[in-house]
Amino acid sequence: MEATRLLIKNAKALVGVHPPGVGRVQGADMRVLPLLEDGWLMAENGIITAMGIEADWPGIADWNGLEVIDATGRYVLPGWCDPHTHTVFAAPREGEFVDRINGLNYEQIAAKGGGILNSAAKLRQMPEDDLYHRAKARVEELMAQGTVALEIKSGYGLDLESELKMLRVAKRLKQSLPLQVRSTLLAAHAIPPEYKSDRTGYLDLIVNVLLPRVAEEGLAHYVDCFCERNYFTVPEMERILEAGTRYGLPGKVHVNQFSSMGAIAAAVANEALSVDHLEVMEPADIEALRGSGTIPTLLPSCSFFLGIPYAPARALINAGLPVALATDFNPGTTPSGNMNLVVALGCIKLRMLPEEAVNAATLNAAAAMGLHQELGSLTVGKRASCIITRPVPSIAYLPYAFGQDHIDTVIIDGKPVRSGASAA
Amino acid sequence: MEATRLLIKNAKALVGVHPPGVGRVQGADMRVLPLLEDGWLMAENGIITAMGIEADWPGIADWNGLEVIDATGRYVLPGWCDPHTHTVFAAPREGEFVDRINGLNYEQIAAKGGGILNSAAKLRQMPEDDLYHRAKARVEELMAQGTVALEIKSGYGLDLESELKMLRVAKRLKQSLPLQVRSTLLAAHAIPPEYKSDRTGYLDLIVNVLLPRVAEEGLAHYVDCFCERNYFTVPEMERILEAGTRYGLPGKVHVNQFSSMGAIAAAVANEALSVDHLEVMEPADIEALRGSGTIPTLLPSCSFFLGIPYAPARALINAGLPVALATDFNPGTTPSGNMNLVVALGCIKLRMLPEEAVNAATLNAAAAMGLHQELGSLTVGKRASCIITRPVPSIAYLPYAFGQDHIDTVIIDGKPVRSGASAA
Repeated sequence: MEATRLLIKNAKALVGVHPPGVGRVQGADMRVLPLLEDGWLMAENGIITAMGIEADWPGIADWNGLEVIDATGRYVLPGWCDPHTHTVFAAPREGEFVDRINGLNYEQIAAKGGGILNSAAKLRQMPEDDLYHRAKARVEELMAQGTVALEIKSGYGLDLESELKMLRVAKRLKQSLPLQVRSTLLAAHAIPPEYKSDRTGYLDLIVNVLLPRVAEEGLAHYVDCFCERNYFTVPEMERILEAGTRYGLPGKVHVNQFSSMGAIAAAVANEALSVDHLEVMEPADIEALRGSGTIPTLLPSCSFFLGIPYAPARALINAGLPVALATDFNPGTTPSGNMNLVVALGCIKLRMLPEEAVNAATLNAAAAMGLHQELGSLTVGKRASCIITRPVPSIAYLPYAFGQDHIDTVIIDGKPVRSGASAA
Repeated sequence: MEATRLLIKNAKALVGVHPPGVGRVQGADMRVLPLLEDGWLMAENGIITAMGIEADWPGIADWNGLEVIDATGRYVLPGWCDPHTHTVFAAPREGEFVDRINGLNYEQIAAKGGGILNSAAKLRQMPEDDLYHRAKARVEELMAQGTVALEIKSGYGLDLESELKMLRVAKRLKQSLPLQVRSTLLAAHAIPPEYKSDRTGYLDLIVNVLLPRVAEEGLAHYVDCFCERNYFTVPEMERILEAGTRYGLPGKVHVNQFSSMGAIAAAVANEALSVDHLEVMEPADIEALRGSGTIPTLLPSCSFFLGIPYAPARALINAGLPVALATDFNPGTTPSGNMNLVVALGCIKLRMLPEEAVNAATLNAAAAMGLHQELGSLTVGKRASCIITRPVPSIAYLPYAFGQDHIDTVIIDGKPVRSGASAA
C-alpha cells in the first residue's frame, strides 16, 4: 500500500503541542495550551512524524504522494474528542421539546410515551441496519464539525438483544468511519418496563448475562450507570462498576446531574475513568476527586438545553482537578453533538478560559475515553487528526464568536474528511 | 435585460405563506404559521408570482431561462429578517471576553479601554474602505446563514464624521449586496469622551447637526437611543425621537435592558417602530405596549452571551402583543449575527413555540424594520427571498437540533446566494 503523506505548512500556530507522555492537564496547568507559532506538521500513514516552526523547516527531498495544505492565517488544533454521547438512537424527539415549551412536566411527557423509555421503545423495533445508517449520517456530520473521536453509549435497548444491537452498531461505525469510536455499556440507563417491579432482576441480567456477553464479544470498552434519584442507587452503581472491573471494563458514569448522593466517592473508589454531568456538586464530591485518576467530564449543552444549572468548572479547576468537556448528544436532553458549541459554552457559561476549554475538549477529553496516547494533542507519534480553522484573529475568537462556523478543514488520520479553502 | 425566473418544486411545505396585507402577527395568532404542504413557488425578476400545491400545479409553457430547484423533503421558509444589529464595526473584542472570564468588571474593562468607547476609538481611526470590506465579509456570512434583510446601526462613531462614515458604509453594503439593508442613526449610543462634561452639547449636535445632515443625505431610515442608566435618560431619548419624527425617521430604541424607567411608554407615545431588548419589564411596560404600533423586539443572543435575564416573551405574547426576534450582532455583548441560533434561543430560552419563533424572525422582524410589505412571508408580490432547509423531519426540529446547520440553499430576490444539494 502506498504511503500517505501530509504536510501542513505556514500555520499561524500549531495549538496543543503537548509533549509526549502528558496524558492530561489539571488545575492551573489547564490554562497552558502550548503553541508553535508559524508552524509546520508532517504526517505519514496517518501518524504525526515531525513538526516545527517555519524558520527551522528542514525542507523535503521526496515530494511524491505528498498532500500539502497551506494554513496561512489559520490555526491547527487537535481534533475534538467527545467522551460522552448517546449517538446511536432511533429518532429525534422534538415533539417532547414542544411539549416542554407548552408547559408539560416530565411525568406528563412520560405518560404521553416520552423520555428514555420512548427512545427504547422505538429502538427495540428498529432493524439494526436502519439504526446504523441513521447513526452513520449523524457521525459524518460530527466529523465535519471537527470531532475525531467519539464515545457512544448503549442504553436505549434495555434488554439483552437491543443493547447488543446498539453496541454492534457502534462497532460498525468504528469499522466503517475513520474516526475513533469507544463504546460503553449503559444498560443501567433506566429500569425497563418489564422489570418495573423487579429491579434486582434487571441488575442480575446486566451483571450476569449482558456484561459477560459484551466482554466476550468485545463490544464495549466501558460500563456506565445513570446513578440518580428514580434511576439507579449508589449501591446498584457499585455493583455494576465492580462487575465491570471483573470483566476489564472501567466505569464512565452519569452522576450528580440532579442530586449529590455519594456517587462520586463510590465511583472514585471503583477507579472509574470518568464521572460525568456534575451539575450538582457538594464540597465532599470535589474532595473525593482529589488525587484520583477519575476525570470530571462536564456537559454544558445539556444544561443549556434543559435550563438546569451548569457544572462548577471553576471550582473543579481551582481544586487542582482536570476537566473534560463532552456533548452528551442524545435525542431527549441534548440534541446536539457539536463540540464547537461545547467549547463556546465552556467559556461563556462555565467561565473556562479559552485555553482551558480547548484542553478540556482535546487532551482531557481523549483521556476521558482512554485515547490520550493516540489523540488529544499535536504530538509526534499521535494520530494526525486535526482541525484547520478559517482565518481567525486568536484562539479566544473561537468561543467568543459562538454563532460562526470556524472550521475550514478537518483531517482524520492524515486524510481530510472536510476540505475548505486551505486544502484547495 | 433577460427575465430571471425561478421555480421551487416538491417542497415538503412552503412555510409562512401569510395572506397579502398581513403586516404582522400578535398574541395567539403568533402560533399560526400557515403552510402549503407539497408546494411549489414561482418567481420572476426576484418577485414571487405564484405558488400552490403540487396537485394543482398548472404546468409551465416556457421553460426558457428558468432555474428549477427540487426541494423534495425540504421546507421552504421566508428568509430571516434581522431588525437590530451593529454589524459595522472596526474589530472584534474577544480580549474583553477573556477579561470578563478572568473576573474583571465593566469598570475595570472600561479602564483598560474596553466597551463601546473602545469600539468607537478603533472605528474613528479606520478608513471607510477598510470598514466597508470588514463589514461586507460579515454580511456575506450572514446571508449564507439565511439572513435576507438586515438593520444596521451607527453608534461607534460618536462624532459627526464617524457617524456619517458608518452610515455610508451601511449604504454601500445595501448597494453592493443583494440583501435589504435598513440603517439607523444611533449617535446616542454613549456620551463620547469629548462631551463627558457637556451631555447637552452632544444632544444638540445629534439633534441640530447630525440628524438634519443624515436626513438630507438619505443615510438612515430610523433613529435610535440607548436609554439606560449611565447612558441616556428618558427625556433625552424623547428629544431624539421627537427630532427623528420631524425629519421622517421613526424610532427604534434600546430600552429596558438593565432597568425599567418609563422608556417604553415614552417610545410608544412617540410612535416608535420598535422597542428593543426588554430584559427587564414591569407590568406597566407591557401595558404601555397594548394597542400600539410599536413592536417589542427581543435579543436572546445578548442574554445568552452576557448571562443577563432573558426577555419575557411569553408574557408579551400572552398580553396579545407581537414579538420580533433579532441578533443584536455587535463586538461587545453579542458577537453573533446567526439568526438560526436566535430562533433556537427563542424556543429553548424564551419558551416560544417553533411557529412563534419563526413568525418572530420573519414577518414580525420584517415589520420591525418596515419591510413587511416586501419580505417576511412567502406571499405573491413579495421578494422571493427564502431559505430551503436540508431534509428535516419538522419545523420544530430546527430549534430543537440547535447545534446543526439546517440550511441547504439561501435565495435572495430569486437568486441563490448559497447553493446546496437541492440546487444541484
